[in-house]
This record gives sequence, structure tokens and C-alpha cells, in this order.
Amino acid sequence: MKKISILGSTGSIGVNTLDVIERNPDRFEVIALAACSNVDVIAEQARKFRPKLVSLFDTGKVGALRKKLQGLNIEVVEGQQGSIQAATLPEADMVVSGMVGCAGLVPTYSALKAGKALALANKETLVVAGKLMMEAAEVHGCPIVPVDSEHSAIFQALNGEKSDRIKRIILTASGGPFRTFTCEQLEHVTREQALKHPNWDMGAKITIDSSTMMNKGLEYIEAKWLFGLETQVDILVHAQSIIHSLIEFVDTSVMAQLGMPDMRVPISYALSYPDRIECDLPSLDLAQLGTLTFEAPDFQRFPCLQLAHDALDIAQTMPAVLNAANEIAVQAFLDELIPFKDIPEIIRMALNNHKPTAVNDIEDVLEADRWAREETRKLVTVTH
Amino acid sequence: MKKISILGSTGSIGVNTLDVIERNPDRFEVIALAACSNVDVIAEQARKFRPKLVSLFDTGKVGALRKKLQGLNIEVVEGQQGSIQAATLPEADMVVSGMVGCAGLVPTYSALKAGKALALANKETLVVAGKLMMEAAEVHGCPIVPVDSEHSAIFQALNGEKSDRIKRIILTASGGPFRTFTCEQLEHVTREQALKHPNWDMGAKITIDSSTMMNKGLEYIEAKWLFGLETQVDILVHAQSIIHSLIEFVDTSVMAQLGMPDMRVPISYALSYPDRIECDLPSLDLAQLGTLTFEAPDFQRFPCLQLAHDALDIAQTMPAVLNAANEIAVQAFLDELIPFKDIPEIIRMALNNHKPTAVNDIEDVLEADRWAREETRKLVTVTH
Repeated sequence: MKKISILGSTGSIGVNTLDVIERNPDRFEVIALAACSNVDVIAEQARKFRPKLVSLFDTGKVGALRKKLQGLNIEVVEGQQGSIQAATLPEADMVVSGMVGCAGLVPTYSALKAGKALALANKETLVVAGKLMMEAAEVHGCPIVPVDSEHSAIFQALNGEKSDRIKRIILTASGGPFRTFTCEQLEHVTREQALKHPNWDMGAKITIDSSTMMNKGLEYIEAKWLFGLETQVDILVHAQSIIHSLIEFVDTSVMAQLGMPDMRVPISYALSYPDRIECDLPSLDLAQLGTLTFEAPDFQRFPCLQLAHDALDIAQTMPAVLNAANEIAVQAFLDELIPFKDIPEIIRMALNNHKPTAVNDIEDVLEADRWAREETRKLVTVTH
Repeated sequence: MKKISILGSTGSIGVNTLDVIERNPDRFEVIALAACSNVDVIAEQARKFRPKLVSLFDTGKVGALRKKLQGLNIEVVEGQQGSIQAATLPEADMVVSGMVGCAGLVPTYSALKAGKALALANKETLVVAGKLMMEAAEVHGCPIVPVDSEHSAIFQALNGEKSDRIKRIILTASGGPFRTFTCEQLEHVTREQALKHPNWDMGAKITIDSSTMMNKGLEYIEAKWLFGLETQVDILVHAQSIIHSLIEFVDTSVMAQLGMPDMRVPISYALSYPDRIECDLPSLDLAQLGTLTFEAPDFQRFPCLQLAHDALDIAQTMPAVLNAANEIAVQAFLDELIPFKDIPEIIRMALNNHKPTAVNDIEDVLEADRWAREETRKLVTVTH
């Protein structure tokens, strides 16, 4: 019985993880749940899965949660310290990191330092602190199994192969809802348009990231950390999101992982790795789909792709600034403070204004993150 | 240094194998060459690669070959016994079985019994004697690495996975040159039309098999033997031959191998397995290809598919009869003795006239093969 701690249990990854666990009660047990502020949902999850520990980040709401879980013999903790407790619980065999954005950084890093196997959906963690994360995984001998569908695909395609036989990684991208938009059309997209992802049903932040293609930029950085900074990572636009990513090996043979877009597949792979467990989900039917299409990514219409490449080229604290500036800019767009086309512009300004420094410990990352958030908020205000 | 014996060195597989070996002189050495009757080509190959042994099946031409190789210190042998010598040479680490049709059966089977690792391109061997071949591989502990692009793809997709986690195998088929032909059009196709394969440059027999889709029928049987008779094997028409085949696992995750259609890729994989070696060949460029298409196979327009399924369902000597009847019918078509549409009809009649018996040793297979050839020749004569 594998004991699982879920960080971000009320989000999209958390809910899907619990669905997989519920379908496999003989294999997995929930030992801890951590969420940000959704008291009703986490309380219901806790009543159903009976973890040992539940953590709520929002200390103002933790009283309400305690009340709801009274008499269930579940320890309720709070704040960042609570998330860390959930991430490092001695009984946990694996930690699923599904918190959104930079909030997941410290708990996820703590899980690795506590020697936990990590199912990683929080890509920002690797984007901002890839060096520290990979070092901790190495030192503590923890496998990091990616949950992002693309990175799970690459991980699966690499299974059984030597990583030094990789010629390049081909990271597929749906291209988002504005794949076919002209530059002119991109100037006038609305919040509602950007929130409609063609293939995946995800949270708001990642859906906007998909529409700007910053999501692919962040995944590019994530892939570089997971599979080797020296590895060539190409981006390929594949509108149907059926081929989740590919590896070309030195013999020009290309291995790919495909499937219907359903997060439960990479989640169940991460939970069961190196084995696979049955998933009662529809099979891929390529004959019915008929056609898969591919095109080169357009770095001009989607400047976030270029910003991500540039940030990783400089490295140090630049990816942390990229990520924080993106979070703030996306929130400003969701709050209708800035137009869509200004998201990359604001991020570019934040990056330009940043003086990158080395990342030697998590505080360096957090400092860059704080600086970038403040700077980006200023840029949002000043420019609008 | 891996010492390779090549059965069928002057054919398409043999020539491509020698190309791979020539590009990797530090890894592979040719220890034996065996061909049917092409004296000029095998003599040139022998002069270049200096094997220890050369075998010519055609005893009438072996004198000419001996003359050409005089003074080179290469042993020249002949006939089926010669092929067997090449297949079982004590120095050989791996035998590449690239002979066309049933002629490869006894030498290939002998290689397994001699404990040789087998790179298997001769699909007929598994079709007619799958039970004996798999048993011999098991008993003598010999890996069978398939060279057929589809089976190599499945083999690669299975690498690192447990075979009991396979939900189904999806064998792709180009659909051949007549993929879009109506039944009416199929009645009037010519020898020249059938010899033009859209994607692969192969020998005449296999090209005709591709146009009738018997090639896929034989590959279906081959896949069943290689990856488990109880495994579901579906056929998927994919005109571009870029995805060479796929495996769906129990979690609905699908692993696929893709690449430009070039036999040197599966050959180099078979030679280097479980490692991969660099191939100086063009990379797959999906963005440039733009589109991959898929459709369900049509068992009505291509009755050879159904014949293969039926033959394997009955098993015993039926697949051997299927294969022999097909070889004779294809040759009759190439000789312009029968029209294209009669290939499946003639095979069907041969199968109907056969009383299947158990396959306990290679003689049972050879007997069914002889019977089927004679019967099919009669059917060709009687019906035309």
C-alpha cells in the first residue's frame, strides 16, 4: 500500500489524483491533504479519504475546517508550515505536488529533502529552482516523476533507454486557443476567449499560460531540468494534443507517448511507476480521430516562448523572475487590468529590469520571486 | 565486436544490414554471408567485408562464385546445407534472417537451435512455424529482435515495460498503393501498379503482399507469435508510414515508435539492442510533414487480412498453407498468369482444401508447405 500526500488537493491535479486513488483502494492510501483555502472541498475530501493530516494554507479559514472535521481524528494544520508538514510526513511514501504557481516551491523542496518520491505537477517549482530541486533529488535519492502530460510522455518514452542516447526532445504544444490568430487578432482577445482551452480542462492560470504559450515556455525549462540542460528541446505545435511529446534517439528512431487528453493517465503513471495500473478510461481511437496535424511554433506571435528560452539561457534568478512576473501579469489580465498582448510585454520589462544573481539556496529564489512580483505589480500600475 | 551472419545478404534487408555494418566498423563484423543466386553481388560483398564463410543456395552457380572468390581465404558452401552452415557458424554472435519467403525457415530455425541471437526480418518463418520458433528461442535462451519496421516499433515501445501490461497492439499499415481503390478498380490493377509501393522500397514479393495487404496479414500473425497469442492485435491504416506501430497499455497510455521509412533504423536497432547506435540519417520532421492520417482497415476490399486472421484462428498447419499459397499466387500474378483479384481467391481455395494437422516439428511445416505449393499451382492452372 503506497501512502500518498497530496499538495494542492482541491485543484485540478489534486482532484484527479484522488479519483485515481479512489479507483485503486488496494494500492494507494491518502495520508495527507494540503490545500490553499477551499474549506468545503478539502473537508469533503478528508471525510472521504480519512488522511492522518490535513493542511490549509489560509490561516483565516482553518477554524472553519477544524470545525467541519471535528471528531474524525484528523490533525488539522495551517499556513506554509502546515503544507511542509504534509509534504514531509514520515508515513508518506510519495508526495504529489499539485499546488499552483510558486506557492508549491518550499513544500515541494521540503518533500525532496525528506526523501520522498515526488509526483511533480507543479512545473513552477522546477522553473524557479530547477538546480536546487535536481540537486536535492540526487542527494536524497528521490525519483521525480513528472505529471505534466508532456513530461510524463517524455519520461515514458525514455523508460528502458539510456538518457545519453537522446538526440533531442520534441515537446508538443496544442498552440492554445489562439494558435491560428494573427498578430492583429491577438491584440483584441478577451478574458473569456483566453479561458477556453481547446483540449484540456484546467485551472484559470494554466489556461491563460496556454493561450500565451508561456505554459510551453515554462515546460521547456522544466524539460531541460528534468532531462538534462544540455539536451536539445524542440517545440512542436500539435493542435489535437494526442501525441503528448516525443524523444528522438541517436538512431533517428522517435519514441512517443499518445493518449486522450486526461490528466488521470499521467497521474496514475506517476503513482504506479515503474509499473502501470489499469485505468477505466476510453481508449485512443486514431481511426476515428482521422488526422493529427503538426506545425512549427511561431515565436513572434507568441513571444512568451522566446522569453522562456532567453531566461533559461541567462539562468540564475532569471527563470524565477520570468515565472513570478508571469503570475502577476496573468492575474492582472484575469482582473482585466491589462490587455492580453501586454502579458509578454510586462514580463519582458520585468526581466530587463532584473539583475540576475546566483541561486545557491531557496532564499535566493524566494528573494527573486518577491522582487519580481513587486516589480511586475509596479509595471502593471505604471503602464495602465 | 559483434560477429554477424547475414542470411539473404543480396536482398533488401541484407544490403541495408551491410550498410549499417559498414558505418559501424568498430562494432560489427561480418562473419558469414548467404544468398540465393546472385553471384555478382554476393561476390562483391564478400570481397568488401571478408567474411569467413559465404553460402550460395543455387548449387548450379556456386562454381562461378568460387572462381570469383579464389585466393581470398573465404570458405564457399552451397545449397540449404550451406545456408544452415552460415546460420550456425560457431563464431556468429547474431544471425540476421533476411531471406525471402519460406526458404529462410530451416536456416533461421537452425540459428535458434544453435543459440544465436536472431535479428528477424523473414516474417514467413514466424508465420509458418511460430510455435516451433518461439519454443526454440525459449529453450535456447535466444532473443528474437524483429527487423520488420512494425514489429521493431512494437519491440521498442515495449522496452522497459512489463508485457502483461499490454492492453493491445496497434499494427499500422500503409494500406499499399490501392488503399483508396474501389472493389471495381481493384479488379483491373496491373502488375506495374502493384509493384509501386508508396513509402517503402522493397523486393517484388513483399511489395505485392503490401498491395494485397497480405503483408499486414502475415505481420498480424508474426506479431501474435512475438508478443503473445493472447494479445489483442488491431490493424490501423496510416498512409504515411511514419508511426511504425503502437502499444496501448492497461492505463490507456499509448507508446509509439515513429521515424522516416528507412529499414536501416530497425536494422541498426536489432544489431545494437539493447543499446542504440548513431545513424547518420535524416531526422523526422513532423512540422514539415504537417499531417498524419489514420483510418480503419477494410477487410472486404482486402480479403487477405481476413484470410490471415482465419488461418491463425485455426492455427496448426493453416498459417503455413496461407503463406505457401500466397507465395505461389503472388508469383503467378507476377508471371501474369492470374489477375490481381484472384490472389486472395486462390489462397482461400487452398486453405479450404487443406485439412489442418498439428505442428510438432519442422517436417510438419515443410510437408504443409509442399502440399500447399502443389495445391496452389494446380488451382492456378485449373482456374485460368
